[in-house]
Amino acid sequence: MRLKRLQKKLSTEGLDALLVSRSINISYLTGFRGDDSWLLVTRDKPFLITDFRYKEEVKRTAPQVELCITDGPIYESACKIVQRVRVKRLGFESRWLSYAFWEKLRDISHGTGLVPVKDTVESLREIKDSSEIALIKKAVSITRKAFEYLEGILKQGISERELAIELDYFLKRSGARKGAYDIIVASGINSSLPHAPVTNKKLMPHEPVLVDMGVDYEGYISDLTRVFFLGKMDAIATKIYKIVFEAQRRAISKIKPGIKISSIDKAAREYIEKKGYGPFFGHAVGHGVGMEVHEKPHVSKRNDKELVPGMVFTVEPAIYLPKWGGIRIEDMAIVTEKGCEILGV
Amino acid sequence: MRLKRLQKKLSTEGLDALLVSRSINISYLTGFRGDDSWLLVTRDKPFLITDFRYKEEVKRTAPQVELCITDGPIYESACKIVQRVRVKRLGFESRWLSYAFWEKLRDISHGTGLVPVKDTVESLREIKDSSEIALIKKAVSITRKAFEYLEGILKQGISERELAIELDYFLKRSGARKGAYDIIVASGINSSLPHAPVTNKKLMPHEPVLVDMGVDYEGYISDLTRVFFLGKMDAIATKIYKIVFEAQRRAISKIKPGIKISSIDKAAREYIEKKGYGPFFGHAVGHGVGMEVHEKPHVSKRNDKELVPGMVFTVEPAIYLPKWGGIRIEDMAIVTEKGCEILGV
Repeated sequence: MRLKRLQKKLSTEGLDALLVSRSINISYLTGFRGDDSWLLVTRDKPFLITDFRYKEEVKRTAPQVELCITDGPIYESACKIVQRVRVKRLGFESRWLSYAFWEKLRDISHGTGLVPVKDTVESLREIKDSSEIALIKKAVSITRKAFEYLEGILKQGISERELAIELDYFLKRSGARKGAYDIIVASGINSSLPHAPVTNKKLMPHEPVLVDMGVDYEGYISDLTRVFFLGKMDAIATKIYKIVFEAQRRAISKIKPGIKISSIDKAAREYIEKKGYGPFFGHAVGHGVGMEVHEKPHVSKRNDKELVPGMVFTVEPAIYLPKWGGIRIEDMAIVTEKGCEILGV
Repeated sequence: MRLKRLQKKLSTEGLDALLVSRSINISYLTGFRGDDSWLLVTRDKPFLITDFRYKEEVKRTAPQVELCITDGPIYESACKIVQRVRVKRLGFESRWLSYAFWEKLRDISHGTGLVPVKDTVESLREIKDSSEIALIKKAVSITRKAFEYLEGILKQGISERELAIELDYFLKRSGARKGAYDIIVASGINSSLPHAPVTNKKLMPHEPVLVDMGVDYEGYISDLTRVFFLGKMDAIATKIYKIVFEAQRRAISKIKPGIKISSIDKAAREYIEKKGYGPFFGHAVGHGVGMEVHEKPHVSKRNDKELVPGMVFTVEPAIYLPKWGGIRIEDMAIVTEKGCEILGV
């Protein structure tokens, strides 16, 4: 089905075949997850080029492909197929193929035109199907449980790093294949950087503790952020938190098929600006999530594409005050036929 | 010092400058660890091109570079410097620069020749200095402690996955930044694959439990493998273990400056062949370890380069018996002036 969608795209783009060298795209299209493998998709057939190590694995996970086991350079095997099936215009993923591989292909692909293309598979991945959404939901549910667990172990004197290690341990025991990225635990002024590295700083009362975490569940990612306080929130924290919360609510209220993606960012940003904190919200309001933590669509004020059912992305307005700290609230939204479903709340 | 070695190499290779786009190489040369950054090294000056997020980080970790903050495409900034300092022949890392970036550079680097080069920085990294060796030793010592810890928690009924999760947790609490790779815990016939994925299989008495793990300590890697048994080793296990152990001893006994790297592999392989298990030892006897789990030198029967003090690599002969399991013993060796130092034992 995914391969069919790609093959349809080949003809509209005037290509006879696409060479898929990016692993994550091969995995998306076929189910096969090995390294050092290429997928060549012609208008009517997919060929998977790999080595003996992956023979059984390909048969099991990707029975629909024609398996080509090679014991020489992978580009030579690719060129042999290209010549055998008479590909005249061969697309390749120009952002993911190295110059060195391109040079090899150029030298031996006599009579075949090499056409650089961008985001061909990534654009398909932008719209999730129901099996993908099920995996994303599972990834989110594991992460939510970890936030509940976190509330039980948050205490004065524990360090950011200790907390991150405990959370990582919990996520793995809960079925995650691995963390989706390095967990962020940023307390006090450390939270004033959007991507603070974890430190040995110990948690103190009344300061924000920003925790950003996600997991990889069977190849699909979650990405959520919460801010906690030990003891009471002070007046600034209360004020900032309310603004960010309302900004997120406004952004989410926009989400439905057909609207411009930029309007989601604008809804959050205009509210934060109106409250006088515009300069302290420097990043886009969200980003697509799926097999990668950051993928299409980019949910910024500059993306005027329309929302489509099946898009999945974060909504994460924030205010970062230098010398004080930051508040970010991040949930994930799935665009449905009528509006959206929010994961995480 | 590392930059000086690179600059010396530029003149012997007839280059006016090298564009380093591979992050790990930038980190090696400068100490700076951020993403989305390029390093341009001319014969007399290093320029680091990055964005505003990393300004303070570069100043702190890489004070020796000229910092170029860009708010546009990174290749445009690189080309401006190239033209300003009049680079005529610009090397680039052809295995690590994408075709798309190369195309951009080609289009705007008027009058500058773009020269594809391979492994220029990787070859420098092949010989470790004392600060690198100290970090590798620390990474190994954390891993050794995890093996001791493992002996205490090994028991019938625990699953491969549970064990891997406990080990990962221990490694992080012991100061590792992260695991160096997914820990391998392969029991019984699962261990007959060199890179078995962790499963939910529970450990049973008398079967081999192969554990391959390492950590990333401040950017440097360890990589060790041990095989355990619950209860008594049976006759096959005892026999195979002894052969692999002796093969490793023979390989290690060869290590000293000036010998051919291939002779290390041959020493282990010939012994295993003599004992009749040649067909069951399919991979090279070792690989370099440093900032990456697999780097130069490749310790195979085909590498006839000479050993040099400062090289660090694994020595990991193995026998994998289909339908039974595998025994691999992996330690790490540092080549010294007179011979070698073995880490892990």
